[in-house]
Amino acid sequence: MKICIVGGVAGGASAATRLRRLSEDADIVLFEKGDYISYANCGLPYYIGGAIQEKDALLVTKPDLLRNRFRIDVRTENEVLAIHRAEKELQVKNLRTGEVYTESYDKLILSPGAEPKRPPLPGIDLDGVFTLRTVTDMERIDAYLKGRSASRAVVVGGGFIGVEMAENLQRRGLDVTIVEFADQVVASLDPEMAQILHRHLTEHGVSLRLKTGLAGIAQVDTGLQVELSDGSAIESDLVLLSIGVSPENKLAKEAGLHLGVGNSIAVSASYQTSDPNIYAVGDAIGVTHLVSGKETLVPLAGPANKQGRLAAENALGGHQAAQPVQGSSVLKAFDLTAASTGLNEKQAKALGLSYRKTYIHPQSHASYYPGATPISMKMLFDGNGAILGAQAVGYEGVEKRIDVLATAIRLHGTVYDLEELELCYAPPFSSAKDPVNMLGFTAANILKGDMPVYYAEDIPGLSPEGTTRLDVSTPAEFGMSTIPGYQNIPLDELRGRLSELDPNKPVYVTCRVGLRGYLATRILKQHGFDAYNLSGGMKTYQLARETES
Amino acid sequence: MKICIVGGVAGGASAATRLRRLSEDADIVLFEKGDYISYANCGLPYYIGGAIQEKDALLVTKPDLLRNRFRIDVRTENEVLAIHRAEKELQVKNLRTGEVYTESYDKLILSPGAEPKRPPLPGIDLDGVFTLRTVTDMERIDAYLKGRSASRAVVVGGGFIGVEMAENLQRRGLDVTIVEFADQVVASLDPEMAQILHRHLTEHGVSLRLKTGLAGIAQVDTGLQVELSDGSAIESDLVLLSIGVSPENKLAKEAGLHLGVGNSIAVSASYQTSDPNIYAVGDAIGVTHLVSGKETLVPLAGPANKQGRLAAENALGGHQAAQPVQGSSVLKAFDLTAASTGLNEKQAKALGLSYRKTYIHPQSHASYYPGATPISMKMLFDGNGAILGAQAVGYEGVEKRIDVLATAIRLHGTVYDLEELELCYAPPFSSAKDPVNMLGFTAANILKGDMPVYYAEDIPGLSPEGTTRLDVSTPAEFGMSTIPGYQNIPLDELRGRLSELDPNKPVYVTCRVGLRGYLATRILKQHGFDAYNLSGGMKTYQLARETES
Repeated sequence: MKICIVGGVAGGASAATRLRRLSEDADIVLFEKGDYISYANCGLPYYIGGAIQEKDALLVTKPDLLRNRFRIDVRTENEVLAIHRAEKELQVKNLRTGEVYTESYDKLILSPGAEPKRPPLPGIDLDGVFTLRTVTDMERIDAYLKGRSASRAVVVGGGFIGVEMAENLQRRGLDVTIVEFADQVVASLDPEMAQILHRHLTEHGVSLRLKTGLAGIAQVDTGLQVELSDGSAIESDLVLLSIGVSPENKLAKEAGLHLGVGNSIAVSASYQTSDPNIYAVGDAIGVTHLVSGKETLVPLAGPANKQGRLAAENALGGHQAAQPVQGSSVLKAFDLTAASTGLNEKQAKALGLSYRKTYIHPQSHASYYPGATPISMKMLFDGNGAILGAQAVGYEGVEKRIDVLATAIRLHGTVYDLEELELCYAPPFSSAKDPVNMLGFTAANILKGDMPVYYAEDIPGLSPEGTTRLDVSTPAEFGMSTIPGYQNIPLDELRGRLSELDPNKPVYVTCRVGLRGYLATRILKQHGFDAYNLSGGMKTYQLARETES
Repeated sequence: MKICIVGGVAGGASAATRLRRLSEDADIVLFEKGDYISYANCGLPYYIGGAIQEKDALLVTKPDLLRNRFRIDVRTENEVLAIHRAEKELQVKNLRTGEVYTESYDKLILSPGAEPKRPPLPGIDLDGVFTLRTVTDMERIDAYLKGRSASRAVVVGGGFIGVEMAENLQRRGLDVTIVEFADQVVASLDPEMAQILHRHLTEHGVSLRLKTGLAGIAQVDTGLQVELSDGSAIESDLVLLSIGVSPENKLAKEAGLHLGVGNSIAVSASYQTSDPNIYAVGDAIGVTHLVSGKETLVPLAGPANKQGRLAAENALGGHQAAQPVQGSSVLKAFDLTAASTGLNEKQAKALGLSYRKTYIHPQSHASYYPGATPISMKMLFDGNGAILGAQAVGYEGVEKRIDVLATAIRLHGTVYDLEELELCYAPPFSSAKDPVNMLGFTAANILKGDMPVYYAEDIPGLSPEGTTRLDVSTPAEFGMSTIPGYQNIPLDELRGRLSELDPNKPVYVTCRVGLRGYLATRILKQHGFDAYNLSGGMKTYQLARETES
């Protein structure tokens, strides 16, 4: 059995070593058009910023190790030009020698990855304009910065790579501006959650230009002039294009393999392409979303690695089912961590799903133990309590809560299960009621009707005449900030002042983060009022409000 | 409806506030014999050590807040002396005035907690001998230390409180010795996992006296003489008894309520005691273990809080089912974190369960990103892949992996599910294959027969003549340490040197942490050898070996 693999990074390298573990007999040939295989794609920004100092550290598995330990025929700088499916042959070009040769296969695994998008705009190919996908890209950026006294960078696109590079270019001493076409960075978050990131990036000196597109780039005497969609321009020494990636489908398309969502390579439930002798994995393929059940693109390293393992087994005759993907991801941005899993609200809306949501702002660990910091969390769920997705932004213990929620989603847990989860508690790590429990409590309270809620976006629609709007914070807090039109009755005075409220009007309650509002709502409901609590309180309200401005 | 609650800490305070949220009408009376309610029991050691500087920070909910916000009749320093069940009355003593009075109830919730064990040994009541359970205990220790130049402490019992107090007494400047009757500290861990903690405590200057009991304490001129079971003695200025807790059952027992496991208060599946008008929660009750299904004691804050919530709902006529408990817990000891959930191997053995196990030693996050540290992990599972329990010890990201495993256990996930979990990955947080995925991979490999394993404890039984014992580490590593009787063939030379191995003998492989041994096992098996990999490699072997000495 001879198995060829196209692409030597996450999915391809995983497939190659798994093949060997399963079969000592297989001939395994790994083609990689670049200089490097199995490198730490996700670590590239940190080399630019200096946290990772040795390039070698990023080369996770060197070709010699694959050759000696796994007896894999590794061919870097060998580009597969064409698949001749009828003959089960590849046409390959040795980029070092220029030689073009033919290689046969019994089974073929495609792991070509994705390519950074490069919009066809004026100046896009100027010196100083980069993308970052490979070690070679990274070396180019590093050499460019070493070769001149660059002091300014524009990052076009505020996704994971964009934000990570903004941080790392700034650590390298550059003034950084992020230009982002959308009204927020990091599309996996909803806008009000991304707003925490906006604040943090700005506080750390990164300039944000949201709702702004790239129009073109021009060379001027003093550097590059980055022209923006609003007619303005920014001067810069370096431009990083990080506006997303497209599945690398050229080989597959030219070979007549079926394409799927977003022009990805279409695969079956066993990672087989439309040719049963050809498998495909990684960023180049479409996947089924665990929550929505829809075909989608999730270009992440974790799924790619797992797909490589499973496709390898199937190429050898196994029957491993393709796994749905839920898009669990995490981003470090300076001191902040932002993580998410499953669907966000934008996606749920686009899919036309019926969903509920809850916001909380708990402390990362027991507030009496030093170092506790707030985490802002949002969870979507449906009427049966199924968890659709969750997001969290904060400083400590952020991704661990999303990992727990990702596990609950994968195992079809509900918000009622979250109430009962028994997670590790000691004061330096959590609270006796972990933030994940709290998400479960608030969601269950919503579903059971114990805590009717409203959301920041509902506030403009509240009738000034037809509703009572009540902030149950302390007078001091109320004096510092409230929502226009809200009156103040501190929670602890509420029972004694119920007569001040019109029993015929629904009461829309708020407080700082939603907890006292919940208690007030309970009191009001039991005294016959139609009462609603603002989910996430003033804190979510302010985040949501800032996103509108 | 009038509901009385006995005990104002975790379970009792949770029940009280939940009652009020559910019912504005209920009369709620909370009796607490101590000075404080709702205090942060788990934070007490950190006040002694100085990390928490204000006592007030530990008083999570003050009586006034419960009175004003929740209209709860809070009676601290009021001890319930007796329950007159027929009359549905309590006999209560006001400890401030000495007055004894009667209070009626419709429903009663008992949350009396547990009491530190004080063995009846000579000198156990001497000045300078303490337990730590309440704020008052903490104040006594603090005052004692402030009142003299104490320089030495003996902590009797190396459980959570014992280890936390050892750290905090040392931070306060004392030389600390832990005296522990068992052969290990922290019983929730198995001995080879606790060994990492033993090393760490010792490195931080804490003296460990394992397999040593307390025989008595005597007052001598220079302090306290702590006499040990081996006939030796240690001089000390302070002795902390932290040898575990017993359910506080006095009231319940005297009232004729049924007792259960370990003399705890027996409760039904709705937290009802044998008297349907009386509920009980917290450290005083027996619980059903989620994994074993057996009645057991799990005195932890998380379950106590959740039980308080549920019992409150049931006392008001609800039908909340008692939740099984899995014993998820975490301990900080200096820089180290130790966490566990479910059953450990000692418990699985004691229960006579059929189980398998796997050890891994992954990095906390991508090894190329600065700050990655090893985590030692152990997981027990059964022949169907059901997860029975897990333990982890390391420096970073330890409890988050146990939280994920706790969630998987709670939701009946299997080791095959762990393979597919999609957890948050970016280099500062994890690896594309998270340690939890790796646990799943290794467990599945064991169950599917892809990686037959053996364990450190099997090594003494390996026949010198009948087996080949093979260390596939590099010659340099092999030179530094190996297992007696093992020969060296480095993994990368194995295929070329198979002829050196007797094909009729089973091959017992090892390497440093188990990964290369796995690859060697795969090669050997495919070449017809009967091969086994040492789970966890030399690292687990050395930990296990040290526990024997």
